[in-house]
Amino acid sequence: REYKIAVIPGDGIGNEVMDEGIKVLNLFAELKGDIKFTYEYFPWGCEYYLKTGKMMDDNGLDILKGFDSILLGAVGYPTVPDHISLHGLLIKIRQGFNQCVNLRPIKLLPGAPCPLKDKAPEDIDFVVIRENVEGEYSGVGGIRFADKPEEIAIQTSVFTRKNTEKVMKYAYDLAEKRNKKKKLTSTTKSNALNYSMVFWDKVFGEIGKQYPEVETESIHVDAISMFFIQKPQNYDVVVASNLFGDIITDLGAALQGGLGFAASGNLNIEKEFPSMFEPVHGSAPDIAGKGLANPIAMIWTAKMMLDDLLEDPKAEEIINAITDVLVEGKSLTPDLGGKATTQQVGDAICHKLKAR
Amino acid sequence: REYKIAVIPGDGIGNEVMDEGIKVLNLFAELKGDIKFTYEYFPWGCEYYLKTGKMMDDNGLDILKGFDSILLGAVGYPTVPDHISLHGLLIKIRQGFNQCVNLRPIKLLPGAPCPLKDKAPEDIDFVVIRENVEGEYSGVGGIRFADKPEEIAIQTSVFTRKNTEKVMKYAYDLAEKRNKKKKLTSTTKSNALNYSMVFWDKVFGEIGKQYPEVETESIHVDAISMFFIQKPQNYDVVVASNLFGDIITDLGAALQGGLGFAASGNLNIEKEFPSMFEPVHGSAPDIAGKGLANPIAMIWTAKMMLDDLLEDPKAEEIINAITDVLVEGKSLTPDLGGKATTQQVGDAICHKLKAR
Ligand SMILES: CC(C)[C@H](C(=O)O)[C@@H](O)C(=O)O
Ligand SMILES: CC(C)[C@H](C(=O)O)[C@@H](O)C(=O)O
Repeated sequence: REYKIAVIPGDGIGNEVMDEGIKVLNLFAELKGDIKFTYEYFPWGCEYYLKTGKMMDDNGLDILKGFDSILLGAVGYPTVPDHISLHGLLIKIRQGFNQCVNLRPIKLLPGAPCPLKDKAPEDIDFVVIRENVEGEYSGVGGIRFADKPEEIAIQTSVFTRKNTEKVMKYAYDLAEKRNKKKKLTSTTKSNALNYSMVFWDKVFGEIGKQYPEVETESIHVDAISMFFIQKPQNYDVVVASNLFGDIITDLGAALQGGLGFAASGNLNIEKEFPSMFEPVHGSAPDIAGKGLANPIAMIWTAKMMLDDLLEDPKAEEIINAITDVLVEGKSLTPDLGGKATTQQVGDAICHKLKAR
Repeated sequence: REYKIAVIPGDGIGNEVMDEGIKVLNLFAELKGDIKFTYEYFPWGCEYYLKTGKMMDDNGLDILKGFDSILLGAVGYPTVPDHISLHGLLIKIRQGFNQCVNLRPIKLLPGAPCPLKDKAPEDIDFVVIRENVEGEYSGVGGIRFADKPEEIAIQTSVFTRKNTEKVMKYAYDLAEKRNKKKKLTSTTKSNALNYSMVFWDKVFGEIGKQYPEVETESIHVDAISMFFIQKPQNYDVVVASNLFGDIITDLGAALQGGLGFAASGNLNIEKEFPSMFEPVHGSAPDIAGKGLANPIAMIWTAKMMLDDLLEDPKAEEIINAITDVLVEGKSLTPDLGGKATTQQVGDAICHKLKAR
């Protein structure tokens, strides 16, 4: 089968790491034999914006609609304000394609640098399901009496039952199948957010009735931020709102060795539109173009795309190949204390993948 | 001078740790000679609620108004819903007495168990200024189409210029005087919260003009959650909204050894009303009444009250006495791997304080 992939390398190191992601995808297809990826590149991002005044073409979503999946590198540029770069591309695709789930594995690979004492890879291995299209990111609000002493700013979170149920079901399904523990943790703050999070807890409880085998718990976002550090081994699948998921997955990224290891998938779970896969890291303009960027998060992200398209357990070999490279410790980028270039790390991972 | 302190031990371990806090306060007054504390106890909390249907008396705020300060132990009970116990007491006092700043030191004491590799006490020593009366905790919102498929929940954050400016000024003042670095970090998320946090950033910048000597930076809440783990030594004074401050201070508590070390002050900075001092930990019903609770957070909290009432540098000796006990390692509660009781730890700290 042939899979058509839309590739948006974006800005800065997005370009460099994307090359390595594609390299690994191609090797995987070659080793597997019966599949093929074709790529169409889109030059969208902040540099495009500086030239054209647009982050992506006006008919961008229409164009992307025809692809099986979207791979994104990184977006951001010092001279383009965040709200333009994000709302013009990343958030536009997430919301426009109703990618209601943002899936983020938090997994410490053997050989990756964990900042915690006394924690081993088996202690840090969970998945966060982040709500991805509404909630705190609804963009609803306003300013009244601007710049006057009586100025107020309001920002409204909007949670719909329809979407919340969908995200919860996805999380319960994953908890049910992920491993023997069958445990789902919900991130809440209903002791202070007396409407949105009370609602969140209610839906979490209701959907849970359909999954009697899944053990559940609700933990306030402040407490879970502490527990991720103190007892990460307690978590298996964690579901969180858009904002809480954003916070706890960056925290989780720190535990697994930094943003160099943080992969993510923005999933349209109905498969009406393509899903989008992107490493969590930014465009890092300070190191761009120098071959210094760690491509592991991008390669891991490409592997998540494979999971979504193929559901082939062989894709796990990509993670094993990354681990081989980490454990060997010879081909690492400077963020991991090595001297290898982005490309050399990509090559080393391909080498290990072939050898498996 | 005589200081009248309202004491609300609250529920569970609140009672046990309060005794040790008071013990240290009394010793401090005795050693200092020219001051005296008198205490009035209020039996408010969840047990009171179960007996009377009220978390505190109706005229509770009126009664508390007459005191120089309020010391709170911990509030919470399994059979009383959070929104009742909190809105009936803790949040009622915070908001009712316009305690607009919540001050939380994040400081790793020598001898305290840090979960991070390669970090020493000098690396973890900052203060978080949390906005404490509005923002995400405004309690504004609602539910529409309850329990129907089209149900939506909304929760609105409300930020006023008046209060935001006040909190920012407090933070800048502290950054200016706290140490040589003179650095203030603002916690934001203006790339997604396009009204509230854009407003927050604006006020942060405006007030900053009055403090040209203070170095400033704005960091998104997701990134700062990662950086607290990776490079806590970068922080000196951090200002954050109510919700963000809640999250990052629990995270910070983990870095300093857990909630057993997390102290806080809810400050009415105009001194129209009393301020309230409380350890961040809860009532821990599972270990209550057994002498197992670590009283260090409560004693540290009592020390923060002294700072607020007296501005006497000698109060720092209380922190030094706690450190002496930690470093000696003989009188520690079970959460720190020791076998001492709550009372024995309080006694040991008093012993060290006398010896200094
Ligand atoms: C860039 C920003 C808007 C984005 C988010 O908050 O979702 C990022 O932090 C992420 O986690 O993908
Ligand atoms: C109990 C809860 C409402 C409270 C808060 O969120 O403020 C607590 O977490 C705290 O940090 O004091």
